[in-house]
Amino acid sequence: MVRARRADEVGLDRIPMFSDGVFAIAITLLVLPLTDARITEGRVGQDLAELSPRIFTFALSFVVIGRYWMVHHRIFDRFDRADRRLMVLNLAYLFGIAFLPFPTSVLGGHGSSTPAVVLYATNLLWIGCASAAIWWYGSSGGRLTRDEVTPQGARATLAHSVAAPLALLPSIPLAFLSPTLAMYSWLLIVPVSFAADRLFPDEAV
Amino acid sequence: MVRARRADEVGLDRIPMFSDGVFAIAITLLVLPLTDARITEGRVGQDLAELSPRIFTFALSFVVIGRYWMVHHRIFDRFDRADRRLMVLNLAYLFGIAFLPFPTSVLGGHGSSTPAVVLYATNLLWIGCASAAIWWYGSSGGRLTRDEVTPQGARATLAHSVAAPLALLPSIPLAFLSPTLAMYSWLLIVPVSFAADRLFPDEAV
Amino acid sequence: MVRARRADEVGLDRIPMFSDGVFAIAITLLVLPLTDARITEGRVGQDLAELSPRIFTFALSFVVIGRYWMVHHRIFDRFDRADRRLMVLNLAYLFGIAFLPFPTSVLGGHGSSTPAVVLYATNLLWIGCASAAIWWYGSSGGRLTRDEVTPQGARATLAHSVAAPLALLPSIPLAFLSPTLAMYSWLLIVPVSFAADRLFPDEAV
Amino acid sequence: MVRARRADEVGLDRIPMFSDGVFAIAITLLVLPLTDARITEGRVGQDLAELSPRIFTFALSFVVIGRYWMVHHRIFDRFDRADRRLMVLNLAYLFGIAFLPFPTSVLGGHGSSTPAVVLYATNLLWIGCASAAIWWYGSSGGRLTRDEVTPQGARATLAHSVAAPLALLPSIPLAFLSPTLAMYSWLLIVPVSFAADRLFPDEAV
Repeated sequence: MVRARRADEVGLDRIPMFSDGVFAIAITLLVLPLTDARITEGRVGQDLAELSPRIFTFALSFVVIGRYWMVHHRIFDRFDRADRRLMVLNLAYLFGIAFLPFPTSVLGGHGSSTPAVVLYATNLLWIGCASAAIWWYGSSGGRLTRDEVTPQGARATLAHSVAAPLALLPSIPLAFLSPTLAMYSWLLIVPVSFAADRLFPDEAV
Repeated sequence: MVRARRADEVGLDRIPMFSDGVFAIAITLLVLPLTDARITEGRVGQDLAELSPRIFTFALSFVVIGRYWMVHHRIFDRFDRADRRLMVLNLAYLFGIAFLPFPTSVLGGHGSSTPAVVLYATNLLWIGCASAAIWWYGSSGGRLTRDEVTPQGARATLAHSVAAPLALLPSIPLAFLSPTLAMYSWLLIVPVSFAADRLFPDEAV
Repeated sequence: MVRARRADEVGLDRIPMFSDGVFAIAITLLVLPLTDARITEGRVGQDLAELSPRIFTFALSFVVIGRYWMVHHRIFDRFDRADRRLMVLNLAYLFGIAFLPFPTSVLGGHGSSTPAVVLYATNLLWIGCASAAIWWYGSSGGRLTRDEVTPQGARATLAHSVAAPLALLPSIPLAFLSPTLAMYSWLLIVPVSFAADRLFPDEAV
Repeated sequence: MVRARRADEVGLDRIPMFSDGVFAIAITLLVLPLTDARITEGRVGQDLAELSPRIFTFALSFVVIGRYWMVHHRIFDRFDRADRRLMVLNLAYLFGIAFLPFPTSVLGGHGSSTPAVVLYATNLLWIGCASAAIWWYGSSGGRLTRDEVTPQGARATLAHSVAAPLALLPSIPLAFLSPTLAMYSWLLIVPVSFAADRLFPDEAV
């Protein structure tokens, strides 16, 4: 069952490993705006309470990166080879992951402003679109996928990867009406992702 | 002995590797409050002496993360497959690891205050409970464990994973009486972990 | 086909993995000057606009590291063993990667100055030369390469690794005439890399 | 040739991988004091020149970590199993690696002071001693080593791991006479390491 490699094929292993490195670092750098926060002697409790918006955005970004990581994992579980275009698409994806600590920091400091909300939502949309593009490129015509992936399974993985970006989309127009309302609308990610996973169940690979 | 994969099973390898990335980064970020410290020309010695509480909390967090890493290692050595719920539990675990540099930094600056001690101990408890939950979920009914894991071996791993959180528990009420005493009580981790490892010896897997 | 190992041969696997770690961290640290930026309440939009040079240099460095990572990947895909000299050359290479966040930060703050541009271009040249040296050392006389690598394939990989440094070279004299013009000249990386990949196609390994 | 595992044996793979993560991050964090440096408009050149001690200490620490990484690599290439004591020794080793950005930062700012030099040299000695302890523990009586490791090869690896700490030792008393002289004495690492590698050549494993 060993196929001859096409000339532009490359080793698959380093791509998810390199991506995991970027994921792990980005997820950990999110804590830095908290670590740098100034806490005054004698009012540690109040200062911690004032940091709660930053703690909330840390948790939010952690959950979002965690969800994206799980989808990325699922996608690369279904590939058994890679080529150079996949590497470029994956770098575009990681650009979004590596950039996320910046919008997270702006949002933690200025959650009530329209540009902060739009910047954050745009960043998340970028990652979601790159994720869908990676799967679409690798799965169309079975270009890079394992033999076990059925058309139905491919549709399921596509649904999982577009769920989060779709749930984020409404927040961008909403941010011009009410930034606070827009932020609450991000909680849509949880039911929409859950529904996508239920409606389009994974198949074993 | 190759079993058919269940539909929701996922590749096991990326989970401990991704976790190791988060561990490695969190353990290394702990040094940043030290690196950022201002040292004045001509009194380098005194300034270093004044940094000793920060050096102590760096060492403390390093030892705690090191212990948790060893237990995490032991748990995943005993699994031979993974599913999506395990990934979610593991992300909850890593949330605690990635967050730890923040309580460490607060504690290093304000060790004598009740909220700093409670925040730090709560963070450690979170990780400990997530660790026990990962093992409990994966081992109950042999859901994800290797065939070689005996009921006795499973109990041993559970004991190892609950030892550290149990030793930390008393420090939270103590912090309201005396934050300093509460911090000393953390040293209980060393004898309690040692006792757990002795009383419940590992079995080969 | 198992050869006896020469006495100074070392395991190959840890070198690309360690390199990927350094890549992943350097690519992620690039965001820190953005995260540290001060955003003032009530003028979030304008402050974000003023950060655009920093966002541009983040994107530029990300693209450059991404390109270098792809070439590094290609080089190590073609090796099947390693020795101590290769490790030293690779550390010289990683020195350049780990250093890059510093010129990126200087450039983001002072793009219009000659020293900032020269520093950045020199750093990129260092990495490019180290990359070419790694390939030249490992491929000459088939020292570390797989049997499948033909002389033509070796030439192609050499061309890919020198493309980016060659495209950067003109920017150093240009920086003394016009730093802005020198920065625009970096965009030469895109067509020159593309041309190198087209003129010297990879062969399957 | 499959041996039965002893009860306290653990998987070997995650230890060097976790260590590489800590190495990669520590080596990359060394750049942060440079990234944070304040550069004033209109005197970028002079400010960069004033940063040269920090650039020198960055390069020094990079070379030292690089040397230690190569020795660590050699040691773990010679092991084929691991136990819990090895994990604890390795964590003690990584404590020194993760701590190094702090002495590096102090030294970069205050190289001419005795405490800065002593702190830095002590940190390097700690890593060197832990490295020798890891090898001594794992190789004595062939506890964890591959069958191919001869007594002569074991002596060679011990010599490689003690070379750097031995070369650093004189700098601690010297720092009380002249911190500058003590720093120059660190350059002894290069000839001493080179001599150790020549006098005690590696054997293939």
